[in-house]
Amino acid sequence: MNDNLIYLDHAAGTPLDARVLEAMQPYFSELFFNPSSPYAPAIQVRRDYEQAKSRIAVCIGGKADDLVMTAGATESINIMFGSIDGHVVTSSIEHQAVLEAAKVHDHTFVEPDEKGRISADSVAKAIRPSTELVSIHLANNELGTVQPLREIAEVVRAERQRRALAGEQAPIYFHSDASQGLGQIDVHVARLGVDALTLNAGKIYGPKQVGCLWTDRFVRLRPLVRGGGQERGVRSGTENIAGTIGFAAAIEFATQHAHGEAKRLAKLRDNLESELITAFPGAVLSGARKKRLPGHLHISFPGLDAERLIFLLEMQGVLVATGSACAANKGTRSHVLTAINLAPEIADGSLRITLGRLTDESNITKAAAILKAVIAGEVKRVGK
Amino acid sequence: MNDNLIYLDHAAGTPLDARVLEAMQPYFSELFFNPSSPYAPAIQVRRDYEQAKSRIAVCIGGKADDLVMTAGATESINIMFGSIDGHVVTSSIEHQAVLEAAKVHDHTFVEPDEKGRISADSVAKAIRPSTELVSIHLANNELGTVQPLREIAEVVRAERQRRALAGEQAPIYFHSDASQGLGQIDVHVARLGVDALTLNAGKIYGPKQVGCLWTDRFVRLRPLVRGGGQERGVRSGTENIAGTIGFAAAIEFATQHAHGEAKRLAKLRDNLESELITAFPGAVLSGARKKRLPGHLHISFPGLDAERLIFLLEMQGVLVATGSACAANKGTRSHVLTAINLAPEIADGSLRITLGRLTDESNITKAAAILKAVIAGEVKRVGK
Repeated sequence: MNDNLIYLDHAAGTPLDARVLEAMQPYFSELFFNPSSPYAPAIQVRRDYEQAKSRIAVCIGGKADDLVMTAGATESINIMFGSIDGHVVTSSIEHQAVLEAAKVHDHTFVEPDEKGRISADSVAKAIRPSTELVSIHLANNELGTVQPLREIAEVVRAERQRRALAGEQAPIYFHSDASQGLGQIDVHVARLGVDALTLNAGKIYGPKQVGCLWTDRFVRLRPLVRGGGQERGVRSGTENIAGTIGFAAAIEFATQHAHGEAKRLAKLRDNLESELITAFPGAVLSGARKKRLPGHLHISFPGLDAERLIFLLEMQGVLVATGSACAANKGTRSHVLTAINLAPEIADGSLRITLGRLTDESNITKAAAILKAVIAGEVKRVGK
Repeated sequence: MNDNLIYLDHAAGTPLDARVLEAMQPYFSELFFNPSSPYAPAIQVRRDYEQAKSRIAVCIGGKADDLVMTAGATESINIMFGSIDGHVVTSSIEHQAVLEAAKVHDHTFVEPDEKGRISADSVAKAIRPSTELVSIHLANNELGTVQPLREIAEVVRAERQRRALAGEQAPIYFHSDASQGLGQIDVHVARLGVDALTLNAGKIYGPKQVGCLWTDRFVRLRPLVRGGGQERGVRSGTENIAGTIGFAAAIEFATQHAHGEAKRLAKLRDNLESELITAFPGAVLSGARKKRLPGHLHISFPGLDAERLIFLLEMQGVLVATGSACAANKGTRSHVLTAINLAPEIADGSLRITLGRLTDESNITKAAAILKAVIAGEVKRVGK
């Protein structure tokens, strides 16, 4: 990336780690073989692929056999939602992929509290006897709020137990989209209590268009894409060898260093946050202050125009987001900010600032100065 | 690849061209931005992406807006088949992806002649008033037989005209899976007469897990994967920037050099073929001699065991296939060889030898000598 740019939009995308690319490189050229071919070099490629799946699985406390490799989180989510017929409980602040996949089914969108938190209680109230899937994201991509998945898992488990005792046959699965959060907070399937988990390599300095869906043994998946029968028949198509090798390297780096990285990012973020709040006492912080991704800062400047701010910041080399990247270029107000009842005047002046590996003390100090100057100029201009 | 290996399985997979990787490289690192982000570097990435789609489209005589980028041919095929409700006409010798996608619908599998050719006549006979999709591959991946798509397109056009005159509303589309053939023969949507075309970057020295579905304006596609609404809502998920840039570079190289490469490969293939036929007059050539991919040679040695041959050839550094790669590791007889009524004794001694960019006069001469020695040894051993 251009050295003059200060990238503060890690939640939208991350650069491929050089070590990850290095790990992938042999599979582009000398190890390009089709893993279904019968000769030894191809068999070696298949072995490396299976091993990469194991390495990914180990990082989340799972087994390789329980992973379906996909072309990203959106596909993983679609496979999960395509595997059930009944009612779905999810939240109104999920990623578009979950919202759209849910709409195909009878569904209930649970509303968050004003911090963007989905309570286990509200999920419990939304569950019906016909509910087959509960899907709550690990962390919100706009607010950074981390959801109480373990508590929600307890609710799902209790419902499962109730059904077993009542002799009801309908399955109920608990899925979480962990696209945001991996590499910053603990993502372990047993500790989270999930039955299914969507992961995305592109958000953790791995290759884009690579993801996976982990499911517990008892979850029955249906094929979304039919063909040669790869990935246990759930997802046909020649395997993405280089992508999966890259994902394995990326998730290993991300999880090994998650604890230290979280501390580092939180410190830098907290400093930036207090600088901005001190300079602009009228600024509004959104999301849960404590239960929040360490690199995430959602801050609104009432009366300012976030799109204009982003443009002015970019002129100074600082790249931040307004709302989520996916909705950003559609000119609509963020569904997340609407769901937490942020007043339009506040919502429209919201910046999402997300720190990551490209962030260090030097460039965040520089970014803070630029942010303060640009925002002060705008405050003056609009007279707020 | 190991220099001691002679790779003669280009139909199963191709190495990534170094120039293609070079074109992709910036999009892994400095141009990693999410194309939906609002700042200029991300907008540049989106522009490059759209331009890459245009470049791909131009190579097949289409327009960027008519392409849906996918994670490969299997997904493209599934999108096409998921977009119709009615009866499907396809052939019994298609790739597994087409066969499995067809089985979800009311379907007719047209049988090939003994050369593996699907006649327009047999397609015409299979079409019913409820037929909504005719899907015939450009070239067979085992035999290399090139299908008479233009003649089949005429049949579909005539049926469409009949329906229009009869006031029938049911649409009928002609789709072709061109995974095999691109870069060796002419692939131009208007000249082929198709309404929809599946392409695969991984078979033309481009990145794996990258493909697209081209459709004519009047074809209505339905989303297979729902979410952020990318690719005209048909295929959600963050766009595969590096992959699409790589696909564009790969298809440009492939189509620019297709004519010369076809001549070069046909000459090398013909030499190998005549050497083998001269040495083993009992060998059986399958597929259409004239209407065949230039790099393709399907040859059977009655009474020999192809799997053993492959193993022995590999010991000498020559990599070839038996049947198609996808079916190869499942221990079942090829559905293609069954469809062309090749006697089991012949089918079980079949090699698929596919030449490509890694093939040159020197290594094919060496391969021919190894093939002759290994096959002669086996002929002697089994006394045939």
